[in-house]
Amino acid sequence: MNREANWSLDPRLAGDTVAAGDLPLCRALVMNDANYPWLILVPRRPDMVEIIDLAASDQAALMLEIDQAARALKGLTACDKLNIAALGNSVPQLHVHVIARFKADAAGARPVWGAAPTKPYEAAALAAFVARVRDALSLG
Amino acid sequence: MNREANWSLDPRLAGDTVAAGDLPLCRALVMNDANYPWLILVPRRPDMVEIIDLAASDQAALMLEIDQAARALKGLTACDKLNIAALGNSVPQLHVHVIARFKADAAGARPVWGAAPTKPYEAAALAAFVARVRDALSLG
Repeated sequence: MNREANWSLDPRLAGDTVAAGDLPLCRALVMNDANYPWLILVPRRPDMVEIIDLAASDQAALMLEIDQAARALKGLTACDKLNIAALGNSVPQLHVHVIARFKADAAGARPVWGAAPTKPYEAAALAAFVARVRDALSLG
Repeated sequence: MNREANWSLDPRLAGDTVAAGDLPLCRALVMNDANYPWLILVPRRPDMVEIIDLAASDQAALMLEIDQAARALKGLTACDKLNIAALGNSVPQLHVHVIARFKADAAGARPVWGAAPTKPYEAAALAAFVARVRDALSLG
């Protein structure tokens, strides 16, 4: 029962992120946008578009991993608020955003999507943040 | 163990919606915006802001109710995509949006928040939609 065999990461998600590692269900990605500390969880199951496409056991695992990623991000950033969302308006492959928000960040009271131009990290800062995420998710 | 005793619905959420009824964990609300078929789930637990504030058992119940609401909305609307999100940038009380999206809707490829002015339903259309939601969620 290797349901991962036919899964591969959407190229657009791959292009916008750096992989932090694999949780039991999801690949954990770090969005390369220094405007917001931003993780993306992608269930390693082929042909998933909606949360309702997942088996119930995978939905349960997804909630556990959302909790884990959100706690990790909150711990790393001491953010004011978390945003958690499965939208998929642009990239259909099922993915869940877990974003640390601050009152004075680039999007303010708005959602982050489209609010400000993407601001890629400097290479060293990105590597350092990914390392901290890996550590916080026990992926080291 | 009545954890609902000290809970009440945020007045802004109450003002923007009509209640469809109560699932085991969440109050199910219908957003009064005819631009998008839009449900909101609010866990009836006091002082919750983040999904990570919920007990693990409530997180599991929330995922079940997200699945139920999303399937209901998909069944009622035959939408192109579901958007599911816990943001809370404006209203801090924990609530989860479950939104039916269409390629040609008022927000297009963007998230719905802030994309188009709210378009309240006509009274009869709102009542009819709430009745269909109640039926689809077995709240009738």
